Amino acid sequence: MDKERLEKQIKFIIEADRLKNIQRQTLLIDKSRRETVPEHSWHIALMAMVLKEYAGEDVDIDRVIKMLLVHDLVEIYAGDTFAYDEVGNAGKKEREQIAADRLFGMVDKDQAEEFRSLWEEFDKMQTPDALFAASLDRLQPFLNNCMTEGHTWGLGNVTSGMVYNRLEVIKKGIPELWEFVENLIKDCVQKQYLKP
Amino acid sequence: MDKERLEKQIKFIIEADRLKNIQRQTLLIDKSRRETVPEHSWHIALMAMVLKEYAGEDVDIDRVIKMLLVHDLVEIYAGDTFAYDEVGNAGKKEREQIAADRLFGMVDKDQAEEFRSLWEEFDKMQTPDALFAASLDRLQPFLNNCMTEGHTWGLGNVTSGMVYNRLEVIKKGIPELWEFVENLIKDCVQKQYLKP
Repeated sequence: MDKERLEKQIKFIIEADRLKNIQRQTLLIDKSRRETVPEHSWHIALMAMVLKEYAGEDVDIDRVIKMLLVHDLVEIYAGDTFAYDEVGNAGKKEREQIAADRLFGMVDKDQAEEFRSLWEEFDKMQTPDALFAASLDRLQPFLNNCMTEGHTWGLGNVTSGMVYNRLEVIKKGIPELWEFVENLIKDCVQKQYLKP
Repeated sequence: MDKERLEKQIKFIIEADRLKNIQRQTLLIDKSRRETVPEHSWHIALMAMVLKEYAGEDVDIDRVIKMLLVHDLVEIYAGDTFAYDEVGNAGKKEREQIAADRLFGMVDKDQAEEFRSLWEEFDKMQTPDALFAASLDRLQPFLNNCMTEGHTWGLGNVTSGMVYNRLEVIKKGIPELWEFVENLIKDCVQKQYLKP
């Protein structure tokens, strides 16, 4: 038992608690408040379990789940940036790299590399695992928006074209679900939750 | 593509959002508010990743993570029961069984059985996976209590003997961490966060 290593791991676990203070724009479906980042991360990890049959054979669901658990950790320091906020997204990459150095630097190198590479793979959206994970990351707030009369779309003056762009990764990540998603976008436009 | 099956899965995912409304007694480490059940579930799933090297060879960490993601789902209907509330815990088993019937009944039988059996295995605390998972489920609120001057212990008039009992599963689930846990209990007693 390497006591120093354990001490670092416990400090990292304690630091992770701070993510509970980071709010997203997305409302809970009952509209009572905005969701927090860990609530979102839990929800999409659960979605990976529920929707795993739609993943291609080259997707490793266990890896996807781990990717989803760590994918927003850097927001502890970098904060959550609203998807449709162009100004806020300008400095996002740099902010998140600095945050990753600080956060993943808390644990020993082997673990730092494990978490960082999962996060970076997610962010690049190129591997089958990352494409499936990113699809869920976009599907969940989309569903919550549909269920809350387009709450965050209203905040950002968002059009259906912008939502198409944002959700397009699903065509690659979970192609079987694209028809369902496309019909739901049309439905949201028809109900005037979303501008055409 | 079985559209009825997908519809059930989406309804289940939407229903899961309600778990974000269930609060636990545990305070966030910055003491700003109580944590929610999905925040707790995310935190312990992350802990499984961080602490996996202390799991025995017979533990499947990927299964543990999935178990942790679903282990409190029934609280959507059954609510969260404070660990040290004897009266509240009296009817817990029945409440949770009814909740499980209702919740897992939303998806097709194969998935209902998958989720239910993970939850039941967790609850029985007998297999290596369930013992590791249950240890994390108890370690996280313990750490948060240590970091918040024993907040929930104060609420429940909790003694160190009660905390020993509650954490004892760690002796079986993550024996390598027991010394660390025992020292931390002693430290909390010494700091008067916890009654002797």
